[in-house]
Amino acid sequence: ANKFSMRLLRFLKKAWHLGVDDPRKVFHCLKVGIALSVVSLFYYMRPLYDGVGGTAMWAVMTVVVVFENTVGATISKSLNRAIGTCLAGLLAVGIHWVASKSGNKLEPVIVEGSLFLLASAATFSRFVPAVKKKFDYGTVIFILTFSLVSVSGYRVEKLFDMAKQRLSTIIIGTSLCILTSMLVSPIWAGQELHCLIIKNMEKLATSLECCVAEYFDDGQKTTSAPVQNLQAYKCVLNSKATEESMANFAAWEPAHGSFNFQHPWKQYLKIAAAMRDCAYCIEALNSCISNKKQASKSMKKHLSDICLKVNSSSGSILRELAINLETFKKTSKMDISIEEMNNSVQEVKNYLKSLPGLVLTPTTSETKSSETAIMEPLLTTNTIPLVEVIPLVTFTSLLIEIPTRVEAIV
Amino acid sequence: ANKFSMRLLRFLKKAWHLGVDDPRKVFHCLKVGIALSVVSLFYYMRPLYDGVGGTAMWAVMTVVVVFENTVGATISKSLNRAIGTCLAGLLAVGIHWVASKSGNKLEPVIVEGSLFLLASAATFSRFVPAVKKKFDYGTVIFILTFSLVSVSGYRVEKLFDMAKQRLSTIIIGTSLCILTSMLVSPIWAGQELHCLIIKNMEKLATSLECCVAEYFDDGQKTTSAPVQNLQAYKCVLNSKATEESMANFAAWEPAHGSFNFQHPWKQYLKIAAAMRDCAYCIEALNSCISNKKQASKSMKKHLSDICLKVNSSSGSILRELAINLETFKKTSKMDISIEEMNNSVQEVKNYLKSLPGLVLTPTTSETKSSETAIMEPLLTTNTIPLVEVIPLVTFTSLLIEIPTRVEAIV
Repeated sequence: ANKFSMRLLRFLKKAWHLGVDDPRKVFHCLKVGIALSVVSLFYYMRPLYDGVGGTAMWAVMTVVVVFENTVGATISKSLNRAIGTCLAGLLAVGIHWVASKSGNKLEPVIVEGSLFLLASAATFSRFVPAVKKKFDYGTVIFILTFSLVSVSGYRVEKLFDMAKQRLSTIIIGTSLCILTSMLVSPIWAGQELHCLIIKNMEKLATSLECCVAEYFDDGQKTTSAPVQNLQAYKCVLNSKATEESMANFAAWEPAHGSFNFQHPWKQYLKIAAAMRDCAYCIEALNSCISNKKQASKSMKKHLSDICLKVNSSSGSILRELAINLETFKKTSKMDISIEEMNNSVQEVKNYLKSLPGLVLTPTTSETKSSETAIMEPLLTTNTIPLVEVIPLVTFTSLLIEIPTRVEAIV
Repeated sequence: ANKFSMRLLRFLKKAWHLGVDDPRKVFHCLKVGIALSVVSLFYYMRPLYDGVGGTAMWAVMTVVVVFENTVGATISKSLNRAIGTCLAGLLAVGIHWVASKSGNKLEPVIVEGSLFLLASAATFSRFVPAVKKKFDYGTVIFILTFSLVSVSGYRVEKLFDMAKQRLSTIIIGTSLCILTSMLVSPIWAGQELHCLIIKNMEKLATSLECCVAEYFDDGQKTTSAPVQNLQAYKCVLNSKATEESMANFAAWEPAHGSFNFQHPWKQYLKIAAAMRDCAYCIEALNSCISNKKQASKSMKKHLSDICLKVNSSSGSILRELAINLETFKKTSKMDISIEEMNNSVQEVKNYLKSLPGLVLTPTTSETKSSETAIMEPLLTTNTIPLVEVIPLVTFTSLLIEIPTRVEAIV
């Protein structure tokens, strides 16, 4: 019993921290509570002694199932539910009508056959990625409504009455959900996505800077960069699924804050992909840290200044980019810092070119083209290449991404 | 209209390919159809003129909502549904009883207050990762049932009757789902996870081999490796979410095939993480291919043989590992191939040590420790370091992983 209470205590502690970290989550819970209370109060006032199956339950059910954390998700689910119900209802009524006209023997065959076929087809359509992404919930509701109507065994005239009632309760439920989620301290999926990307970009900059600083730190200075900063890029690696679902929900949201209805959400996914490429490179850089002691110290000292310069400038570009994203404006500082970075990259290249040591491989080394000549010395510098070439690749790929992105937003 | 029909045709074509690629998906759809038809047939025989809200609809609803692609997911959802309903039902009845005893004025306050509090608390618990992972659906059902009972306004005695009915229909629905999903060509999440890991391991081996072959290929041989193989590792990068949900569902599954009930599914996630680390390295390797022409050709020729040897041996280890996983046995060949790989890695190191060229940096180079001496020449070989050091890091990390893994399974 003591063990169990310890566990419970730990669980509650964790939950408390979760709430303190993001108070909006607590707000969301209260919102769900409010929405449910309002719906139930509405029906509690005139009790439904005609059964739990009365129309009231559909409104309650809609609220429970449809209410999601973000506005986009709520709207998407609401629309899915409404459209799925309508379509399935119409189809079911149609088939019912045909079945009722075709005699007693054929009726069950038609009803059961259509149920089997439609359920199978709708389930299959859930495997198609395009449907899965946007209408997964809608197809579930479609199957549900269709089979419920089929089972009901009502006459067609009565079905119309019922459909009207059900539709009205669903509309009550969904509109209540949408209103509560939009008006009471809303959480916009678009806003969340926007912040996530900006935060990730800053994390990327931090861990890039920490990583290179760590590499060139000989243990003489105190290690100012905790492991936490160094590992910050891991968030970027693992955030793909979140970003995609956010972008998906954001597309459903109306204009809010500084975002328009047709905000280019897909661009965010592109930036995220570019950032993930960067994170892979940082991952590779990080693996070099473990054998940093194997590099010659003299060489490291020479390189550390310019490498740090490249890195700080690229880090500042990332930060600049984050600010640009935040304000939707291309600052003039951006161009300057890109130029600065390119300059320092060139400086590193030049320095490496000027290094005395050249690989004395078989005689062909004299006859190399100028292009290989640049690349060669760059790689004669022990272990630095790994640190240097990868950022170069990364930064250039990021640099290519920057203009397209900034242009898309401004 | 023509445009629309074109689109529809393309959609159907895609869906058809999906079905042909994985016929089990089609089977799954047919299974859903069968399960629904059976349930509806059961109730169609004795029509429910007492309303759609009759108990029958809960069986139908359970089938629609609970039936998932894999056995594990179906069982997990069924249990969630059953437990959520029971818990919420008991609680709701208890609160109802208290409320009914406390007079007319207090009653609505108690009912509404408890609904608000419990709905908020349950929604909040969905944010806790541990709950989210295993009981997300259960909490939704908990809220749903609790609020439905609260709204119903029944007397306590009648509630017990209703609870019995509802429970029986849910048991009918869930057991039908579980039976259909387990008996009619079942898709086990564990099996799927197992195959996915093995397939990914093979993909990793393929793209590793292709990548290195591509790098050392001077365009003289025909490019035998299509881009597809080269990009195979990308699957490994993006499969994290799938693997986690699979492992989660697999934990719910009973013994099947060669898997026991308490199969170490978490070990699979560990292997997957190690594989993802490898994939990051391959990503870095791949980025080197674009500037492969900048490396000196003579050097490349010298290195290509041994590098290819290292890579083919590590590739074969990956394949071997995949076979080991498949058969749950540690083959004796494994030890040999690991030794072989270590040998060829050592060979590369030795070769690099024997290279004539050494970096002629400031005089300190003579006074280096033996450890740096090994590392130094390793990196004097133009652009090869990038190709070479990273696999070394990767393979050693994988090698550390192998014994723990194999021991866990055998």
